[in-house]
Amino acid sequence: MNRFIFVTIASLGILIGLASCGNEAYYGYTVRNGIAVYNTPDRPADQISMIGFTTEPIDTVKVGVIGLGMRGYSAVERFTYIEGVEITALCDIVPERVERTQNILVRHGLSPAAGYDGEDAWKELCERDDIDLVYIVTDWKMHTPMAVYAMEHGKHVAIEVPAATSIAECWQLVNTAEKTRRHCMMLENCVYDFFELTTLNMAQHGLFGEVIHAEGAYIHNLDPYWKNYYEGWRYEFNKNHRGDVYPTHGLGPACQVLNIHRGDKMNTLVSMDTKAFNGLKVAEQFGETEYANGDHTITLIQTEKGKIIEIQHNVVTPRPYNRMYQVEGTEGFANKYPNEGYSIRTEGCKTDEHKALDDLTGSASDGEAYLSTEARDALMEQYKHPIIRDIEEKAKQVGGHGGMDFIMDYRLIYCLNNGLPLDQDVYDAAEWSCLGELTRVSIENGNIPVVMPDFTRGDWNKLDGYKHAIAE
Amino acid sequence: MNRFIFVTIASLGILIGLASCGNEAYYGYTVRNGIAVYNTPDRPADQISMIGFTTEPIDTVKVGVIGLGMRGYSAVERFTYIEGVEITALCDIVPERVERTQNILVRHGLSPAAGYDGEDAWKELCERDDIDLVYIVTDWKMHTPMAVYAMEHGKHVAIEVPAATSIAECWQLVNTAEKTRRHCMMLENCVYDFFELTTLNMAQHGLFGEVIHAEGAYIHNLDPYWKNYYEGWRYEFNKNHRGDVYPTHGLGPACQVLNIHRGDKMNTLVSMDTKAFNGLKVAEQFGETEYANGDHTITLIQTEKGKIIEIQHNVVTPRPYNRMYQVEGTEGFANKYPNEGYSIRTEGCKTDEHKALDDLTGSASDGEAYLSTEARDALMEQYKHPIIRDIEEKAKQVGGHGGMDFIMDYRLIYCLNNGLPLDQDVYDAAEWSCLGELTRVSIENGNIPVVMPDFTRGDWNKLDGYKHAIAE
Repeated sequence: MNRFIFVTIASLGILIGLASCGNEAYYGYTVRNGIAVYNTPDRPADQISMIGFTTEPIDTVKVGVIGLGMRGYSAVERFTYIEGVEITALCDIVPERVERTQNILVRHGLSPAAGYDGEDAWKELCERDDIDLVYIVTDWKMHTPMAVYAMEHGKHVAIEVPAATSIAECWQLVNTAEKTRRHCMMLENCVYDFFELTTLNMAQHGLFGEVIHAEGAYIHNLDPYWKNYYEGWRYEFNKNHRGDVYPTHGLGPACQVLNIHRGDKMNTLVSMDTKAFNGLKVAEQFGETEYANGDHTITLIQTEKGKIIEIQHNVVTPRPYNRMYQVEGTEGFANKYPNEGYSIRTEGCKTDEHKALDDLTGSASDGEAYLSTEARDALMEQYKHPIIRDIEEKAKQVGGHGGMDFIMDYRLIYCLNNGLPLDQDVYDAAEWSCLGELTRVSIENGNIPVVMPDFTRGDWNKLDGYKHAIAE
Repeated sequence: MNRFIFVTIASLGILIGLASCGNEAYYGYTVRNGIAVYNTPDRPADQISMIGFTTEPIDTVKVGVIGLGMRGYSAVERFTYIEGVEITALCDIVPERVERTQNILVRHGLSPAAGYDGEDAWKELCERDDIDLVYIVTDWKMHTPMAVYAMEHGKHVAIEVPAATSIAECWQLVNTAEKTRRHCMMLENCVYDFFELTTLNMAQHGLFGEVIHAEGAYIHNLDPYWKNYYEGWRYEFNKNHRGDVYPTHGLGPACQVLNIHRGDKMNTLVSMDTKAFNGLKVAEQFGETEYANGDHTITLIQTEKGKIIEIQHNVVTPRPYNRMYQVEGTEGFANKYPNEGYSIRTEGCKTDEHKALDDLTGSASDGEAYLSTEARDALMEQYKHPIIRDIEEKAKQVGGHGGMDFIMDYRLIYCLNNGLPLDQDVYDAAEWSCLGELTRVSIENGNIPVVMPDFTRGDWNKLDGYKHAIAE
């Protein structure tokens, strides 16, 4: 039982440095009495909190895009439907991708952007003085290095998920944003999905009472995609890392509905995984015999206010796609997969109490019921999120993961145009990305509790609830 | 943060005795390096393993029932539809309940049973020499004391869930059964529900490949019931105990499909709960201001073979009833709530791989799909469990939780009539009931890992998979 060997070693209370940490003494953790406690370093004197950070309005946001594979290519297509934005530079390792993306601009009657290709061309793009925002949609490993370099060259950044692959990288993003006073937004798109936004709006209107528990997941069988889609780098990362390496799609919506670092904070997590049963079969596709990532990983997170979040990860077993989005409150309940449903006390979900007390047949007839499809649709129309109301038709035209990618880009540009705080700040990027390393540490030490770092350094209670900024 | 105080104290590595343990030194746990390790005491010389235990066939099983409230009353009603069984004695604190239950026998043209009422009358029932099986359906606290007393007086016992409310009680059941060589079966009915039995049969035929993860829960809003149904004792128990106090409905089906103590074993668990947000409101109904049990409790269990089980508990928030039964394998997937669905590779669940690789719209169109309703129903008919095939019509007539209670009683009597091992042995009773105390210890010590006791004392690998015994 490896785990027990790990525990014995880890539990000596010696400061453990992680291979993936650039600065062990500073960003590492100590195992005290079998609990891994991450260090939250003091904020250097030349840094300022980014809570509520805004800049002067930018009439036309000049964007440079790094990474023109599937994600970057479709992002440029989406930007052509948004006002107040201009694509000024495009960069990819592969020249053909730059050409292919230029054609989008031409097709829409826009002037072509400056093109860059090759290994280090992205640095030249970051060094240009006619770019406000660098939009980074490359492989996971390059997200933080590119974002840090861009911010250090005065650019705001938007980064595909996960924004960081280690605690050290999370702190690099936070420290660089605080030092350079640049926006650093992770491009977590699932928080903009229709059901999630509508449910968040219901929660903010109190329909669920106090939200006490939220669940999320990334359950997506990638069997058909390992080779042709991820070109090896995603496989490489999964092969080499245990833990929930892709947590942000599930964690983002859960953190927003629980007001994380807007009145509550994530304190401690424990994580557990299965062996790599199918993972080893994936490795065999590549002629290899080792695979670290467990087939199924589950993580429980305790918040300061006594709520819990559950996050799952599974990309290798055959089951339907499931982000497991679930919101549980003292007065109501929302569930997205496999069916979108609500159960809300005030909406008359209480069932007939004359029924046999031990009749457990079927959810709809016991204790509480889901709203009927008609009632649900009416409620969802009533509580449709203002942002969706504004642009849903256009979003559906443009598409991209059911429109949520368009809403994400639209909000990013809208907030920059109006000098508003972005929907996701640098602390969200760090908090939602940090599970990768923290879950690995819990699992590799025998599922021990891990005290999470506070990336806000004590500022988690300064904002009163999560809000999307809207211009007056 | 109470939890950290707990950890500091607990982590001194001193042997901790639990208030609920009769014998601290023997049944308690030690916290070593932040891990609570439960002691698995050696088997006393005068005890023999109950793995695969059978007795001589009993042509007519003479039953004494203790507890004639809702559960006991309906059990007697069910027994009247089963051959090879005779109700010889009835016992309840309340005389009227005995009378009411005698009327069932009269109504069915059966001779009335010996009646007992009053506080200690159950002991007299256990002392009779014309009883083979004592059927115990009283409040939780009396389950183990009554079962132990009955076994010590030579009777086989069947006990409502949970069979035990502490680790000490779990060991009392195991030790008494091993010493007296009497059957001790917990009356976990959910393992006999139609979907669970059919899914278990599919798993045993390999449709899911290797099962690597299972989920279960008891999510049932008891708001309408606290006062009029549970008469205070269930409220009292929840009020006084953190942790998953009612785990067996979710854990039973999960353990059967994972062959627990038939080739695999549960090794370690971690548990986490929310604060008692609604629980305190329940307490207020009784004019009280304290309530220990968290509104939502989640437990993760690691098995020897590297599988994981997740179990949830929530009886106080408004949401639809959900036992969350889910089975995940290397080749397929089954899900019961809110919809019964299967996704199985060999059954053509693979979806069109020409679709956009980033199309995440809807479970049915991504990665894998659920079988269509028609295909599902055909598959469920094909893999209908032999036990269901035998008696489903009668089971549906008789009813009781959709027939599963009848199947449970039928199997209990069938196995005794034929001298076969019972479907649930004393180790199942202990393993499925032990989560109550173990989850509390994990939570009260700061969500630390708890190494579970091995109630089989090393015999967990002697049987090759879970099987229902069938007469030749």
